[in-house]
Amino acid sequence: MSKLFERVALLGLGLIGSSLSHVIRQKGLAANITGYARSEATRKRALEIGLVDRVFTSAAEAVTEADLVILCSPVGTYGALAQDIGPALMEGAIVTDVGSVKAAVVRDAGPHLPASVHFIPGHPIAGTEQSGPDSGFAELFANRWCILTPLPGSNPEALAKLIAFWKACGSNVEIMTPEHHDLVLAITSHLPHLIAYNIVSTAADLEEVTDSEVIKFSAGGFRDFTRIAASDPTMWRDVFLNNKDAVLEMLGRFSEDLSALQRAIRWGDGEMLFNLFTRSRQIRRSIIAAGQDTAAPDFGRGPPKG
Amino acid sequence: MSKLFERVALLGLGLIGSSLSHVIRQKGLAANITGYARSEATRKRALEIGLVDRVFTSAAEAVTEADLVILCSPVGTYGALAQDIGPALMEGAIVTDVGSVKAAVVRDAGPHLPASVHFIPGHPIAGTEQSGPDSGFAELFANRWCILTPLPGSNPEALAKLIAFWKACGSNVEIMTPEHHDLVLAITSHLPHLIAYNIVSTAADLEEVTDSEVIKFSAGGFRDFTRIAASDPTMWRDVFLNNKDAVLEMLGRFSEDLSALQRAIRWGDGEMLFNLFTRSRQIRRSIIAAGQDTAAPDFGRGPPKG
Repeated sequence: MSKLFERVALLGLGLIGSSLSHVIRQKGLAANITGYARSEATRKRALEIGLVDRVFTSAAEAVTEADLVILCSPVGTYGALAQDIGPALMEGAIVTDVGSVKAAVVRDAGPHLPASVHFIPGHPIAGTEQSGPDSGFAELFANRWCILTPLPGSNPEALAKLIAFWKACGSNVEIMTPEHHDLVLAITSHLPHLIAYNIVSTAADLEEVTDSEVIKFSAGGFRDFTRIAASDPTMWRDVFLNNKDAVLEMLGRFSEDLSALQRAIRWGDGEMLFNLFTRSRQIRRSIIAAGQDTAAPDFGRGPPKG
Repeated sequence: MSKLFERVALLGLGLIGSSLSHVIRQKGLAANITGYARSEATRKRALEIGLVDRVFTSAAEAVTEADLVILCSPVGTYGALAQDIGPALMEGAIVTDVGSVKAAVVRDAGPHLPASVHFIPGHPIAGTEQSGPDSGFAELFANRWCILTPLPGSNPEALAKLIAFWKACGSNVEIMTPEHHDLVLAITSHLPHLIAYNIVSTAADLEEVTDSEVIKFSAGGFRDFTRIAASDPTMWRDVFLNNKDAVLEMLGRFSEDLSALQRAIRWGDGEMLFNLFTRSRQIRRSIIAAGQDTAAPDFGRGPPKG
C-alpha cells in the first residue's frame, strides 16, 4: 500500500488511536504521525512504544501541517478539541473522528472547524474491552465495518481519500447519515453496553447471593456480559449523554419486549418462550456467515486454565 | 484416575451427556456407558461416534445394572423420566442430574425414585451455545464448578462418591440447597440468557434498522449477546418454566436498576453513569482472577477472518 498522507495527527492515544498508529505504520499509509493526549503518562508511553513521531501537550500544535486529523478521544471532548485546533488546521486537511455517536459530533465539533478543511465524521465498528496506549493492535479494523457520515456538500475527493484510508486499514466502508448511524448503533452497540453494565450492577447489589458466588458461577452466562461492561467508563458515559434519543427509543422497545417475556414466564407460556428462543439462533448464524464473529463454541475461549 | 463406577447410564446425549461420555472414557471413570435418547438420529449418532457402548429406546432399559444414572435431558422431561426408570433402578445406585434448576427437579423427579437409590441432584456450571451429540468434548468441565444439592438424609458415602466423580471430571464441587442454587443461577445464568434472547428479538423487530445492518455492525457489542441467545430453546424454555420465582425476582431488580439508568440518561446525569460503569471493571477482573474467563481481549477471538 502506498502512502496516502504526509502527516496524520492522532488526537487521543487510547485503544483506537494506538491501533490506528500500528496499522498506519504497518501499511505505510503516512510519512509521519503526530499525537496529542491529555495525560502526561499517555504521551510518554506513546513515544516510548513508537506510536507517534512527535507528541504534543496541545492539540493545536499536533495538527500543524497534518493533512489527516483524527479525533480519537471520548466524544465529550470533541467540542473543546475542535475549538482548539480550528485555527491551526492546514487548508485542505481532512478532519475525521472515530466517535461512537455522530449527530452530536456534527453539532459539537462542526461549528468550530473552518470551511477550508474537509470535515467527514466517521466510526470504525471495532474495539475490545481494553483501553490505553498499550491496548492497540494493527488488525483491530480488519474485516470490520467503518461508517462514514459525510455532510451535505462534502468534497467527493476528500471522501474518496478517507474511504481509501479505511480500506487500507482493512475495513469495509458504509456511508449513511449521522442520524441513521446513531439509530443503528443504539441497538448494535449502545443498548448492549447499557444492559451489560446494568446486569453487572444488579448482580453486585444482591443481598441473598454473594459477589463470590456471582464470580464462581459466572460461566453460566453472566461472564459474557462482564466483558463489555469492562469497557472504558468515560467513553461510555459520553456515548449515552450524546445519543440520548436513540438510546431511550431502543431501551423503551427492549423494556416492552422484556415485559412480554416476564409475563410469559409468570403465566407459564412455554410456547411463546420456545418460539422466541428459536428464532434467535438464525441471527447468530448470519453474524458468523458475515464474518463478524467466530463460529467456535464459547467464542473459542478454549479449555479454561487452572 | 481409577474406575469409580461399573456402568454409567446417560439419559440424554446432547452437549452435557456427550461431554460426560468423553471425560468418562478419557479418565477411565466407568467400565461401560449405556445411553438413552428420545430421537432415533441421536441414538444412531451416539453409537457411531462411540459415546455409548449400548443405546436404548427406553430409559428404563438403559439404567438396568447402572450404578450411576445421570439425567442429561431438558429439565421438563425429568418427571416422566424418573417415573419411567424408578422401578428399573438397581438398589444402591446413585441417581443424579445436570439440570439448570434444582428445586423443580427435587419436586418432579424425587417422588418417583425408590428409597433404595441415592438421589443427589447436581448441576455442572459449564456449557457452550452448541447442542447435540457431536458438540461434546472432554474438557468442558475442567476448572468449572459443579453444584450438588444433596437432600436432608442423603447418604454421605454416595455423596462422597459423586463428588469424587465430578472432581475426576476436572470440576470443583460446591454444596448448597436446591433453593439457594436456584437463586444463584437465576442471576449468573438464567437472567443473562433471558436478556440476551430479548435483545436479539428486539433488534429483529425494528422497522428503522434492517436485520442486515444489525448483522454488519454487530461487532459493536451486540454479537456478544447472540452467542448465548443461540443456546438450545427447549432446554431454556424448561429452565424458565421451572425457576419462575427466582427469575421473576432477579428480573424485577434488573428492571428497577435499568429504569434508574434510563432516568440518568434522560436527565444527563453523567456522574451517575460514570460511577456505575467504573465499578463493573472490578467484577470482570475478579472473574478472570478466579479462572472463570480468559483475560485475552475480545475473549481471544483473534483477528477476524475475511
